[in-house]
Order: sequence, then structure tokens, then C-alpha cells
Amino acid sequence: MAVKFALIKKCSATAARSGLLETGHNVIETPAFMPVGTQGTVKGLTVDELEQLGAGLILGNCYHLFLRPGVEIIARHGGLHSFMNWKGSILTDSGGFQVFSLGGLRKVEDEGVEFTSYIDGSRHYLTPERAVRLQNMLGSDIAMVLDQCSPYPAEYEQVSKAVERTTRWAERSKHAHLREEQALFAIVQGGVFKDLRRASAASLVEIGFGGYAIGGLSVGEPKDLMYETLSWTVDELPPDQVRYLMGVGSPDALLEGVRWGIDIFDCVLPTRIARNGRVMTDKGYLQIRNSVYATDLSPLDENCDCPVCRNYSRAYIRHLLNAKEILGLRLTTYHNLYYLNRLMREIRKALSENRFDRYYREEGPKLKYLYGGAD
Amino acid sequence: MAVKFALIKKCSATAARSGLLETGHNVIETPAFMPVGTQGTVKGLTVDELEQLGAGLILGNCYHLFLRPGVEIIARHGGLHSFMNWKGSILTDSGGFQVFSLGGLRKVEDEGVEFTSYIDGSRHYLTPERAVRLQNMLGSDIAMVLDQCSPYPAEYEQVSKAVERTTRWAERSKHAHLREEQALFAIVQGGVFKDLRRASAASLVEIGFGGYAIGGLSVGEPKDLMYETLSWTVDELPPDQVRYLMGVGSPDALLEGVRWGIDIFDCVLPTRIARNGRVMTDKGYLQIRNSVYATDLSPLDENCDCPVCRNYSRAYIRHLLNAKEILGLRLTTYHNLYYLNRLMREIRKALSENRFDRYYREEGPKLKYLYGGAD
Repeated sequence: MAVKFALIKKCSATAARSGLLETGHNVIETPAFMPVGTQGTVKGLTVDELEQLGAGLILGNCYHLFLRPGVEIIARHGGLHSFMNWKGSILTDSGGFQVFSLGGLRKVEDEGVEFTSYIDGSRHYLTPERAVRLQNMLGSDIAMVLDQCSPYPAEYEQVSKAVERTTRWAERSKHAHLREEQALFAIVQGGVFKDLRRASAASLVEIGFGGYAIGGLSVGEPKDLMYETLSWTVDELPPDQVRYLMGVGSPDALLEGVRWGIDIFDCVLPTRIARNGRVMTDKGYLQIRNSVYATDLSPLDENCDCPVCRNYSRAYIRHLLNAKEILGLRLTTYHNLYYLNRLMREIRKALSENRFDRYYREEGPKLKYLYGGAD
Repeated sequence: MAVKFALIKKCSATAARSGLLETGHNVIETPAFMPVGTQGTVKGLTVDELEQLGAGLILGNCYHLFLRPGVEIIARHGGLHSFMNWKGSILTDSGGFQVFSLGGLRKVEDEGVEFTSYIDGSRHYLTPERAVRLQNMLGSDIAMVLDQCSPYPAEYEQVSKAVERTTRWAERSKHAHLREEQALFAIVQGGVFKDLRRASAASLVEIGFGGYAIGGLSVGEPKDLMYETLSWTVDELPPDQVRYLMGVGSPDALLEGVRWGIDIFDCVLPTRIARNGRVMTDKGYLQIRNSVYATDLSPLDENCDCPVCRNYSRAYIRHLLNAKEILGLRLTTYHNLYYLNRLMREIRKALSENRFDRYYREEGPKLKYLYGGAD
């Protein structure tokens, strides 16, 4: 097996569970949040810092790396791990989401998708087979199938067709996937339609994959509808395999995702808002550029033991961001990823001590109150 | 004494010397290069990285910190060291150079200078006394007097008047300087005129300061003229006190500066060019964004043992810079500062082994050839 997943603990009151995900590179305790390293780096940080803050698995993006610098040169380095000097594990997204969301889309047909590069306008053709081959070359621990992601809102007919195509593409992906040390995960689609989600999950499980992602959520639908959809979908997935909720990273949604049985998550949210001065704390989001922090000698988060909170004041970090100093966003990025990693550690601890349900009932409403607003 | 300087070794053939500069924070081996941390951070790096690459003394800028975030809030942190969490030593520039070079200058008179902020257009008045008081509040280990820097080229009469004012201001600065644990350095001016440089140095030495800087060089004059001016000026300075050449940081000029008896240097060059993709190597400058490096698996500099060169390829760093990833300029900045620190270490070693003259004669022409061109 390319990756091994072992369930450790199941919550008796909810669908939450903890586990160990083992790749050729390391073992990741789940539930876990994956920092996003789209272009061969998590924006602003070194791999040493990622390791230091506790990340074991990061996300790379095949679409972006294919367009720049090209997969060939990464393969000549021995793969993405050695290109970026990362000792942990890597999951690569296929690029399906980007092809359908970044514009420049020319044509979608059963064979594949034609799109133009957002960098230089050049034309490219991506098929399920090619997406797998490119990820084989990148040498990630986990590859994702090419899928067709529907927007929200979308008509039932449209979403239904995207689900069928996603299933056909998943089957072709599986046949094309040759690299034994790499796992291939499928992606469940179906918008917010219960029967489509169930059908998508069931047909992918029938084909059989190393793990299952839930895509096409957190694309604009209300959060309650996202959680409902999640609950329908998870029901259809094999309990002993990894479940990955794509594009979710706010503290409240992470807790809800865990509650519905999700094991891994990724999202640009913590790093993107950090570059804009927005940080996560035990009292909610804090926009550090606000003038009220100009003379604030306290750390970003009083309860945080990360090196940023131990060594720097809000006034200093605000000054750095105002002066457009790079160190400012390095510090906020580090803190936000540390914050989410600490949250996931707390969740795992609650699971291991058989008190997740209480943690969820007490922390859930609090996190929803603090973080449930505009992301 | 606020800082202690002890000469260790003098070159028998040139004016070069090595020494130890002791502040309340640490001991710096000289000759040394100071990374520039204008706004309370060396652009792109953390203080841990500065320590790791061997920096013991960095430069802060009173003018910039006065305008943003203001000296008051830094004082409330206990000074610039704790504001930025730097355990080493800090030299603060008075802001004279910035007032005279950044525009927004309204009026220069004997009392002081009126200028407008480049940030918000607000009006400010800086006097020698105020520059000292602000640096007292910043708590730097070494403060600089407010001086009047002449441009190049400039008329003799103009430069002569600036020298006289610089001397009067230096005297007032000394009277205003009350903080015992902080040294106050004077700044020799005089353009490229031999008698003005000598007169400036002599009158400042007569007043008596903790160290002497040479300002108003590297402002556009030919390098040979800079070195000639340096030789005249150094002659007038007390041999047992620190000499600081301001604004010089190319490898060839550092070696020449040492040859003429300079102990410390600062310059934005290594960090500024790094952000633009230009790195220092044993084969000269290298513009890493050039397409020729797109498939180059070798490190920035084959002979360098810094973590950047040990862990990353030119192709990877080029990709990061092209993709506008922050990590790219972090890596090039680190490498350039490491490179200069290694150069200074080699120079100190040559001095300690009584072979600086040979080092200078062999490395000098090589560095001039490699780095003597456009900075």
C-alpha cells in the first residue's frame, strides 16, 4: 500500500475519529490540517519552520507547478520533496479545481479540458491520465484524480453531469496510476444535492481508491448546508479509509468537519489572511493593522506559546505590516498555522481521552461564534 | 566607557587592523559588516537568522523609526533591542543622510533642519540635540551625531560650509548626549577635498568621540577617488578608536576599506540586490532570474556552506523569485549576508595570521574584477 491509515479512536457520540496516516516519509496524526504550498513553498515560510510548527503533510498543486516551473525540472531534482527540501509528506492536487475556477477555460469534453495559462496565455490540454502522470513525476505521497468541480449555486442537471464525468475520469485515473509508492485519492462531487453526493461517493468507492476527498464544498454555500452535505457524503465512505475535506480551514469549520468524520483538511485561509494582517486567537480574528494595536505591548494571542507570541508584541508586528516589511507577514503566517495546528492537537487529545463530544459541544458554539462570520 | 575597542593585530604592510568591539550586549570581531535594519528589521530575515549567519551588530535608522512607528512606542518596549527581539548590538544612524537625500527637505539652518515626512507629508524639525535624545530613547549601543552630508559632485564652498556645520552640530550633540551606556560617534564629512576631510576629522577628534565614522562617500564618486579620500581621512583619526565607513558593502570596497584601516561597514547593497535576484558568489554577481538558471541544479555558490547553498538549487530559487514567492528573497538575502560575513571572517583570519597583505594583493584584484563594476 502506498499509504497506510489506521483508526485509533472513534468518538462514541459523533462521527469523529482519530488515526495515523503513514506515508513513505512520515506518520501523520489525524485529524490534521495541511498547510498549502501551491507553488513549491508555503507562502512566506521555510520547510524548517513548517516542521517546527508541527506540520507533517503539506499540499502542492500540480496545476500551478505544471505551468511554472514545469514538472520536468522538478522531476530532475528527484521530485517535489527534494526540489523544495521538504522531509515530510506531500499531497498534490490534480488541478481540477484550478482549471474550473481560475478562468482561461476553453473547452470541457469527455476526453479532458483545454485551458490557457494565466501566466502567458499558452494553451494546454489536461486529461485524467495526464494529471496522474504529472503527479507521478512530482513524486508526491498522495495524488488526486482530475475532477469536475461545480460552482455554487448550480442546476441539478449540470451538477449531475459533472458527477458522472468525475466518476468516468476517476476510473481512467486509476488505470493510469502506476506508481506504487504513491496513493491515489478520488474526489466526491455532487454540489449540495443529497442523492448526487451519495451516488458520487458510492460509485467512487466501488472503483476503489486509497482515500476519498470531498470536493466542491466551501465554494459559497451556507456553512450549515456544507455540514449537512458532509454528513450525507461521509455516510457512503468506507470507515477504515482516509477522508479529506478540501478547501476548509476556519477553526469552526475544522471542528465541524472532524465532528462529521473528516481526517484531513487543507485551505489557503490561514496563510492568506495572515499576509493581510488577520490573525487567529482564542478571542477570535484580530486585524493587527488596526490603529488600536499601535501601542499594544501584548502578544498576538495571550494563550499562545508559539515563538511569535513569545517574542514579539502586537505593536511591533503592526509596525512591520504597516511598513510593508516581509518579517510582518512571516510572523502572522507562522502564528496562524501554529494556531490551527494547536487546535488540531487539542481535538486529537480530546478524542484520545474520550471527551470529544464535550469538547465539541463546549468549543463548537464558541468557535462558531468567534470564527463563524466572514472568512 | 560605553563601548570598548581593543586593537588585536595591525598589518605590517597596510593600514589594516583587527580588533574587538565590546558593547553592553556582546563582543564584535572587527573588521565587521553590519546588516541594515532600517525599520526595526533587516528586510526579510528574523533575528534568529541574523544570529545564525554570524551578525553581531546591526544598524537601525532613527529617522525612519522616528517617522514610523515613532520612538515613544519603541521606548515603551524598553528600547529597540526588545522591540525587535535582537540580542546583539545596534548602531543607530541619526538620520542626517536621509534628511538630506530622501527629499522633502524644507530648510537647513544652524539650529537644525526642517523636513516633511515621506509617509504622510507631516512637518518635522530635527536638531542635533533632538537626534541624540531620540537615539537615547531607542537605547542603541552606538548613536551617531546629526551631520550634513554633501552630494557628489559639489562645489568646494558648499562642502566647506557643510563641514563647519557638521562640526558645530557634533559639538552640540556631545553636550546633549547623556546616556552613559551608549557610545556617540562623530561623522567626518568633506566630500572628496583633501583639506576639508582632514580639517573635519581633526576638529571632531579634538572634540572627542567614542568612535569616528566617515560619511559622504559612496555617493556617486569614482571608487578610486573614494579610496584616496579614505586614506587622507583615516590618517587624521586616532589609531585606537573604531572607524566606521558608512554605506559601503560591495566585496571589493569592503576589502579596500579594511586595507585603509576601517573597522566597521554598513550598506543596503547585499539585501537590496538580493530581493531583486542578484547574489554574491566566488565567481562574482549572479542574476538568478536569468533563464539560463531555469534548469540549473547546482547551488547559488558551489563554494558556500550556508544553509541556502546546502539545501536549494538555483532552479528552485529562480522559480520562487519568478513566482514572486517570499521564500525566494528570504533565501537570496540570507545567502548574500552570509557571503559578506564569510568574506569578513576570511579577512580577519588573514590579519590574525599576518598574511593580510598577500590576501589583499591576491584577492583584491580578483574582487575588483568580480565586483568592481556596477553595484
